[in-house]
Amino acid sequence: MSSATTNDSKRRPGGRSARVRQAVLDAAFAELGEKGYGGLSIEAVALRSGVAKTTVYRRWPTRDELVADALDSRSDRNEPVPDTGSPRGDLKEFCEGVRAKLTSNHGKAMLKSLVAAVDQSPEIVETVQRFWRERRDAGGHIIERWIRRGVLRPETDADLLVEVILAPIYLRVLLPGGPLTGDVLEGFIDLALDGVLEDIASARTNTDQASAAASDAAGVDRTERANTT
Amino acid sequence: MSSATTNDSKRRPGGRSARVRQAVLDAAFAELGEKGYGGLSIEAVALRSGVAKTTVYRRWPTRDELVADALDSRSDRNEPVPDTGSPRGDLKEFCEGVRAKLTSNHGKAMLKSLVAAVDQSPEIVETVQRFWRERRDAGGHIIERWIRRGVLRPETDADLLVEVILAPIYLRVLLPGGPLTGDVLEGFIDLALDGVLEDIASARTNTDQASAAASDAAGVDRTERANTT
Repeated sequence: MSSATTNDSKRRPGGRSARVRQAVLDAAFAELGEKGYGGLSIEAVALRSGVAKTTVYRRWPTRDELVADALDSRSDRNEPVPDTGSPRGDLKEFCEGVRAKLTSNHGKAMLKSLVAAVDQSPEIVETVQRFWRERRDAGGHIIERWIRRGVLRPETDADLLVEVILAPIYLRVLLPGGPLTGDVLEGFIDLALDGVLEDIASARTNTDQASAAASDAAGVDRTERANTT
Repeated sequence: MSSATTNDSKRRPGGRSARVRQAVLDAAFAELGEKGYGGLSIEAVALRSGVAKTTVYRRWPTRDELVADALDSRSDRNEPVPDTGSPRGDLKEFCEGVRAKLTSNHGKAMLKSLVAAVDQSPEIVETVQRFWRERRDAGGHIIERWIRRGVLRPETDADLLVEVILAPIYLRVLLPGGPLTGDVLEGFIDLALDGVLEDIASARTNTDQASAAASDAAGVDRTERANTT
């Protein structure tokens, strides 16, 4: 047990082992972005990271394992959940975080290389799906909180909502679909939260009609009320 | 002028010239899907289409012009606007059309090759943007019709709505994000149309409260009512 303790202390976060691991994963992320999945070689990753090739091979015997860990190091799993006081604010912060990652130095290239790689390796498909699952969960925590607080409808499909808000961000990164300013992010969020049907207005009209019915006795003109709404 | 007329008659739709053109564009579409923008050669397109290389070069001097015309031949510009009697039905039909194109024989490969190509050629960026503009317009015609009919709110941003509904379809094709069944398409559409806020329900709750206030006189406990909602 004492030797295990010694080992653990060698592998503590921030220790040499963790630094080596991070250097290799950063290099893999960069190589993947620049050369794509097809062009990724463990030799180049070792060279770029300054870590001995044998060390890299020992820990990541295959390219797929290395790519999986590189992507995993960018997971949203441990991201703090935004808490701004409104679903719009929380989702904006979440979307800004995703935008920052997707448009970062290697983020866009990495995304493109994954799009190309999913047809080449079933292992990469699993990795991408796990990553996407964690990103949807990160957004889902926001949605579920606002369902609990009674602001979002209880039957809201959190996965679907996160997907509908994030997909246009991804697509604008992948195809030159336009800018990703804060206004644009808010546009996606507002649309998904508010919808576009006249229903809300007609529900309000129902309320108005109820109170109008109540005030009929007081001689208020319903037509006039309707015209002013 | 009479020679121009002769020329025009040679180029009538369905004539030899149009058939040659379509054969070349179909071959370009297929080659682009299989080999990507970087691997596309006019020689291979000529070979695949069975059209003389010199003929292809005469009409499409550069690869970019050929890609632009190939993509343009798949434009939504001349698609009939669905007319099912509801915005949900129209949008479903529209989305099914887009899904069919994106998941067609060469559609997915073509989309992936464009994603890869946009970083390599500014001409392709313009082509992709024009194509996307026409697809958003095709969806926009549906939205605008239902705004005119008073079913969608007049301030609805048609471009944004089409983008929010289509982007998840594109993303599920590009990354293995899950199936694209009719139910899934309806999920995207319903979310964008209805939103997820409790607003509608709270408008209804107001109505409830109004009737609760009315029934207070009858001794109904408001707190108890509130707890059960």
